[in-house]
Amino acid sequence: MFESAELGHTLDKKTWDRKVPKLREALLEAQYDLLEQRRCSTIVLVGGVDGAGKGETVNLLNEWMDPRHVQTHALAAPTDDEQRYPRWKRFWSALPPRGKVGIFFGSWYTLPIVQRVYRQTKGADLDQSLEEIVRFEQMLHQEGALLVKLWFHLSKKAQEKRLAALSSDKLTRWRVTETDWKHFGLYDQFREVSERSLRRTSTADAPWNVIEGLDARYRGYTAGSLLLEAIQGRLAADAARQKSPTRAPSGDSFVSNTGADLLRALKVPPTVAKKAYDARYDVLQARLNKLSRRKALKKRSLVLVFEGPDAAGKGGAIRRVTRALDARFFTVNPVAAPTEEERAQPYLWRFWRRMPPLGHVGIFDRSWYGRVLVERVEGFCQPADWQRAYTELNDFEEQLTRHGAIVAKFWLHISKDEQLRRFEQRKATGFKRFKITQEDWRNRKKWGDYEVAACDMFERTSSELAPWTIVSANDKYNARLQVLETICDRLEAALDV
Amino acid sequence: MFESAELGHTLDKKTWDRKVPKLREALLEAQYDLLEQRRCSTIVLVGGVDGAGKGETVNLLNEWMDPRHVQTHALAAPTDDEQRYPRWKRFWSALPPRGKVGIFFGSWYTLPIVQRVYRQTKGADLDQSLEEIVRFEQMLHQEGALLVKLWFHLSKKAQEKRLAALSSDKLTRWRVTETDWKHFGLYDQFREVSERSLRRTSTADAPWNVIEGLDARYRGYTAGSLLLEAIQGRLAADAARQKSPTRAPSGDSFVSNTGADLLRALKVPPTVAKKAYDARYDVLQARLNKLSRRKALKKRSLVLVFEGPDAAGKGGAIRRVTRALDARFFTVNPVAAPTEEERAQPYLWRFWRRMPPLGHVGIFDRSWYGRVLVERVEGFCQPADWQRAYTELNDFEEQLTRHGAIVAKFWLHISKDEQLRRFEQRKATGFKRFKITQEDWRNRKKWGDYEVAACDMFERTSSELAPWTIVSANDKYNARLQVLETICDRLEAALDV
Repeated sequence: MFESAELGHTLDKKTWDRKVPKLREALLEAQYDLLEQRRCSTIVLVGGVDGAGKGETVNLLNEWMDPRHVQTHALAAPTDDEQRYPRWKRFWSALPPRGKVGIFFGSWYTLPIVQRVYRQTKGADLDQSLEEIVRFEQMLHQEGALLVKLWFHLSKKAQEKRLAALSSDKLTRWRVTETDWKHFGLYDQFREVSERSLRRTSTADAPWNVIEGLDARYRGYTAGSLLLEAIQGRLAADAARQKSPTRAPSGDSFVSNTGADLLRALKVPPTVAKKAYDARYDVLQARLNKLSRRKALKKRSLVLVFEGPDAAGKGGAIRRVTRALDARFFTVNPVAAPTEEERAQPYLWRFWRRMPPLGHVGIFDRSWYGRVLVERVEGFCQPADWQRAYTELNDFEEQLTRHGAIVAKFWLHISKDEQLRRFEQRKATGFKRFKITQEDWRNRKKWGDYEVAACDMFERTSSELAPWTIVSANDKYNARLQVLETICDRLEAALDV
Repeated sequence: MFESAELGHTLDKKTWDRKVPKLREALLEAQYDLLEQRRCSTIVLVGGVDGAGKGETVNLLNEWMDPRHVQTHALAAPTDDEQRYPRWKRFWSALPPRGKVGIFFGSWYTLPIVQRVYRQTKGADLDQSLEEIVRFEQMLHQEGALLVKLWFHLSKKAQEKRLAALSSDKLTRWRVTETDWKHFGLYDQFREVSERSLRRTSTADAPWNVIEGLDARYRGYTAGSLLLEAIQGRLAADAARQKSPTRAPSGDSFVSNTGADLLRALKVPPTVAKKAYDARYDVLQARLNKLSRRKALKKRSLVLVFEGPDAAGKGGAIRRVTRALDARFFTVNPVAAPTEEERAQPYLWRFWRRMPPLGHVGIFDRSWYGRVLVERVEGFCQPADWQRAYTELNDFEEQLTRHGAIVAKFWLHISKDEQLRRFEQRKATGFKRFKITQEDWRNRKKWGDYEVAACDMFERTSSELAPWTIVSANDKYNARLQVLETICDRLEAALDV
């Protein structure tokens, strides 16, 4: 993999002087095209051997492009604050919006590679991380991002020479840290782990480019050219698609659940009387309150998802939960249409920004499952998009749980008749807050489609780690008790109470 | 101030049971009205004596209102990450958007009061902090926020009793910390400092309400009623204003600069030849690069503001600056129209979110000065709004510099003829990126108004701490050199080089 980057490539000054002005102009043009179309975000990953000119190249790219539309991120080891959130959060928050270029100097590759080089993890752990990265990058690609991955390489001899040269010059000495020399001592391990990482994560949609880092002109020009080529390729492809739009092929393996059996088969439990409800509610509330104050929860977080038809009682159930919690440690996130800033990012971005830190409870009134519910049913995204979403949502929740989140998902179900009854009731009370919109009536017409979508969702996204609980909610009392009880049970199991 | 909150107020259960359901219903109604109108954000500050039921009241308010539209923030001591930013940043990022309610459990009052109680600061420091708070809250009020400030009080005897009672009960023992007892030992100092703080910050627009915290029913009901009253008052006032809109009175003391003398008098320096420019540029770039790598800068930040007419060469000057910097440590922020999320917040919010941390450089291509330039000239805000902005902008920059920011502001000036020449030139080159829009031509017609606005701005916002540098930019070379040189000079002065 690295052989061709050890041949001693150079670029003479004359060629540089002739070629670079054209490259710069073309890069600027391409950058402004991206900006104008606001269709694709460009993510440049910069990795490789210390001393191979990564920093210089990043600076060069900033110099060549319009720095007003480039965001450079040096993501070193996570800070204490960052460690309170799932590992991927800081990468998500650094993603450039459509139209812009984001350069990642240090990225999601850094930690897995370093940890493996230092033998803090096993080969299997590395592979798992790489697999996760592949899926993440695939998702970015499918969400419209352009990934340009640059790896700067030096042979062992060349690295030694380069570090020595930098160290001996007064002006550049500061650049060589002790860590750099320490890493050099681990050159062979580093090379082996890097090669494996690059091989496993070099995909058709997000290939790695290995650049020999010995000669400043060669590496700079090569990096710039590769970036330009990638952007131009994307612009051309977008333009072609614009002219003759073809639908993205649907997921091959997607077979929809045959009907909505799961929901139709939902048993309606006997109605709970007010008195019995009050007594049981008090007990459950006290139980949840006690659980929520356990010390062990400071190192976990709780993510609660509420989905279901309009008027199913999601808001009411949520209030019965929050009443048992300390207001300092929970946030309720009502999920409506995405904002302008959110629409310029992959669809999961707006949920990542609301993820609770350790010790907190994040409650979602509607959620990321909108992708496979409303967006699917209303055709807000293409079939291929919602079909791939199941995997993405499972990956997403796995990333949350791996960081200590306890995820519980509720589908509050009511019958179509019950919904009508509640709509009529709301109309009658005349409270502004219970306004029934045209949209609510429209959604009702697609009742069957939503049921099928929900059943597909249960089947594909209910896991040990993040199970769905389907709640019969025609009887509100029953629904609220079941929600509370399920949360308590999950907490007890997770905290080993 | 606290006398009437030591009388032993109570509310009997019968009255509570009769009154609370009505209060809750009215609170919910009011909350939904706020939400529907999205005109005003509601900021509830909760402070006071430990053990006076602050936490319980916050939970109660969350229970009574719809928690989906309430954001509760427990702002304890700033984390390491937060300390890398000016102190006000974390408060700004916690502000609720229009329509929502934000409850601050611990707020901008906490640190100044605690520091003074512990005698870490002097009386004058406290007064300065309080003065700053008054101005901040005034700005919030004028930006449309409703401030409801609740202070929970207990007499010394009552506090002792309450802490003892909490400590003796197994279920509540966890609530009483060592700090609480330590604070109790400082009761008299705390009372004195609090009283002074409340007195100085109780303004007509943001008055304090002192609530006796002894009796749970009394304090809960009182807090809820006060909040309701405040919201209803604001809704009524908004509705009245809607019916018969009156212009807010302009700032009494505002007298516009008599004309644009400062800009007209700007001396045009002799043109710089290309060769001289190149030589000088190299020297300045090296100087800036060296300065930017100084260790002392790790504990400072650099904030650069670029304003000036269209085509004045702001982008070009910025690129000459960033070329000398390491891309990992700067961000260029092009400032365009605010996004949806930004429009739901006070106008400075969108700049706070982009403030660089210590060790970083934040460059703004157009800035917060849009308030007194484009918004003034185009009538995007009322005269009273831009007239009060000068003070707000000065306060803002003082908050930045107090945290270690070095602020430099540049006005790149060109003549009207020179602008026309550049517009024509851009039209001729045909580059997409140099597209001249209708707006550019429109802005040109208001040249004189912009000049007056700029001169008013220099006069009112150029300070020792954050001076304006007016740059003659008809000659690009001259402009770029002057910008670089000024930045170097500022850095050297600030870092004591």
